Amino acid sequence: MQFYMPTELITGEHCVVENAAKLARYGKRCLIVTGGSAAARSGALQDAEEALRSQGISFTHYAGIEPNPTLASCQEGGRLAQEAGAEFVLGIGGGSPLDAAKAVSVFAANPGMTEEIFYSAKWDHAPLPIVLIGTTAGTGSEVTSVSVLTDSAGKKHSIHDRRVYAALAMGDARYTMTLPRAATLSTGIDAICHCIESYFSKKADPFSRLFSVQGVRLGLPVLRQVAEMGAEEQPTLQQREALYQASILGGMAINPTGTVFPHNVGYYLTEHYGIPHGFASATFLPELLKHVRQQAPELCERFYKACGTGEEELTALAKRVVPVRGIRLSEDEIRAALPRWENNGTVRNTVGTVTMEEIADMLRKEF
Amino acid sequence: MQFYMPTELITGEHCVVENAAKLARYGKRCLIVTGGSAAARSGALQDAEEALRSQGISFTHYAGIEPNPTLASCQEGGRLAQEAGAEFVLGIGGGSPLDAAKAVSVFAANPGMTEEIFYSAKWDHAPLPIVLIGTTAGTGSEVTSVSVLTDSAGKKHSIHDRRVYAALAMGDARYTMTLPRAATLSTGIDAICHCIESYFSKKADPFSRLFSVQGVRLGLPVLRQVAEMGAEEQPTLQQREALYQASILGGMAINPTGTVFPHNVGYYLTEHYGIPHGFASATFLPELLKHVRQQAPELCERFYKACGTGEEELTALAKRVVPVRGIRLSEDEIRAALPRWENNGTVRNTVGTVTMEEIADMLRKEF
Repeated sequence: MQFYMPTELITGEHCVVENAAKLARYGKRCLIVTGGSAAARSGALQDAEEALRSQGISFTHYAGIEPNPTLASCQEGGRLAQEAGAEFVLGIGGGSPLDAAKAVSVFAANPGMTEEIFYSAKWDHAPLPIVLIGTTAGTGSEVTSVSVLTDSAGKKHSIHDRRVYAALAMGDARYTMTLPRAATLSTGIDAICHCIESYFSKKADPFSRLFSVQGVRLGLPVLRQVAEMGAEEQPTLQQREALYQASILGGMAINPTGTVFPHNVGYYLTEHYGIPHGFASATFLPELLKHVRQQAPELCERFYKACGTGEEELTALAKRVVPVRGIRLSEDEIRAALPRWENNGTVRNTVGTVTMEEIADMLRKEF
Repeated sequence: MQFYMPTELITGEHCVVENAAKLARYGKRCLIVTGGSAAARSGALQDAEEALRSQGISFTHYAGIEPNPTLASCQEGGRLAQEAGAEFVLGIGGGSPLDAAKAVSVFAANPGMTEEIFYSAKWDHAPLPIVLIGTTAGTGSEVTSVSVLTDSAGKKHSIHDRRVYAALAMGDARYTMTLPRAATLSTGIDAICHCIESYFSKKADPFSRLFSVQGVRLGLPVLRQVAEMGAEEQPTLQQREALYQASILGGMAINPTGTVFPHNVGYYLTEHYGIPHGFASATFLPELLKHVRQQAPELCERFYKACGTGEEELTALAKRVVPVRGIRLSEDEIRAALPRWENNGTVRNTVGTVTMEEIADMLRKEF
């Protein structure tokens, strides 16, 4: 059994402003890293600025993080952090800005570092301290040592490195109240996928499974309610809070295990067809459930019993939340894509054995 | 919701020797801190020495930690660490040596520090890095920022300070195989008390309660089996492993919450009558269960449902494991002791309101 998650996590209404004094630990200047407008729309940016000002911390704001952020944007952020003399990096947003903030802090401390060295993890200097404020209930990036970035060839890669754990992470479910319905569903199902994929990783242990199960127990009933809501209806703060907690539990679960094949096969859909990350992973969730039913039936049974759910319910939910796609993959395209999953660590970590034929079959079936 | 537990935790058979390389992070010389003979009897000391030698780390062994360790012993350990030029402290044992190792690391970095300054937490220098190897399944000290020490007036005090979190903690249930029956029961019920007391703390949150519930679910059935064993029978490694995991979960639970009144009232029995810590706390567990049944019935219901147990079973177990005591407390003694619990933070953190009359009544009833 292994556990290592050194981030100080604080969640709750108004936690950012109330815990402003903690920010002073990390320095007098910071670079704020966000995407386009969600950080401000959520209210998180304003709270963060108020908290920084109350501590006399000056800041520069870099709002250049796109969805599925590129390494180039992170390099640019690193350059800005350096220029501004930032002593720490404050990421605000969903998975993209938070993952990017981690990479920005690496580049800020290692000017001129190449993409190759970044991915090799042979960094000369430790990253700047990282503070993260989550505004979606999905990624769990607040509590993981994972950063998923798109390289210069357009391919999503994740790094797992304990040096990119945030020093401090704060989450206030109020910030998720402004999420549009599709984003709530996509991030929500991402959190559920984290919990489930982690549970069925070869690296899972009693601790990680504790987080997985609790994440599903908390998040699943609420996500189902949200999926069934009319277009006009909005989740309550209490529902948002449950989804947020589930996303944190999902993050805690994947730290020691990583994800398994749905995430990695899903990357392909995001890279090539722009399908949002959560929907891309959820596309292959029913396939994972079928796989583990066949290859690890007892574990499967134990999981469903602990979570109070079953394959049918999870499959139905995944199908319900993922929007209909107008995509067709040709046999040639499938054949051309397969090599990326051979000897892929994420795919190999799935319990049982995942063959390339199995992946080809699921791509044929889904598209 | 708050979570902060920066210790790297590794458990499992042979984990100390297999993870020897991690020790090299903390320096080239260390002070090993243990009690009398249990560290060697358990096999942990030999494994630790092998691991240190494999990394070329030299060590000095201080075996001067008594049960319910005094601050004086920790000061002496600090002096020895300094003399030896230790760069880190490696504690091996149950709660006493582990808690003491934390204080030794503080004194080692702050020579000549007085008792008053130690308790004030106004330390000039950060403690030396701390590595802990647990040999009992009870304290959870491996993963807590708590150190309970006996001051020069003979009173047990706990400090809670994030600087005394271990950098690395390792646990191998094999080390607990040599524990005598009484120690297994006393430490085992201590772990269960940590889980339960934490659950009924005013500071409990969904995270801490997750650990509490899982600790009880894992540990309680096994502790009951052990309590019912004949004198000749020994718990299996699998049972030992479950108890060890429960103790870690108990530690994770009490980090944000602390314990509540059974622990603190129990200190009195340990100080004045030498009753082992676990038995002393368990003496007041039935009183806590009665208190929460009356003052927080819904929470109580939720707890029993989540854990799959009830007041009757827990009360019966507590009464079964605690040995018969030949102690009588006079009314005068009870009256004289009460002031220590007025305005005591631990007592006040119990859900509901604990009055001094309630404590006096439970002391009269138990003794």
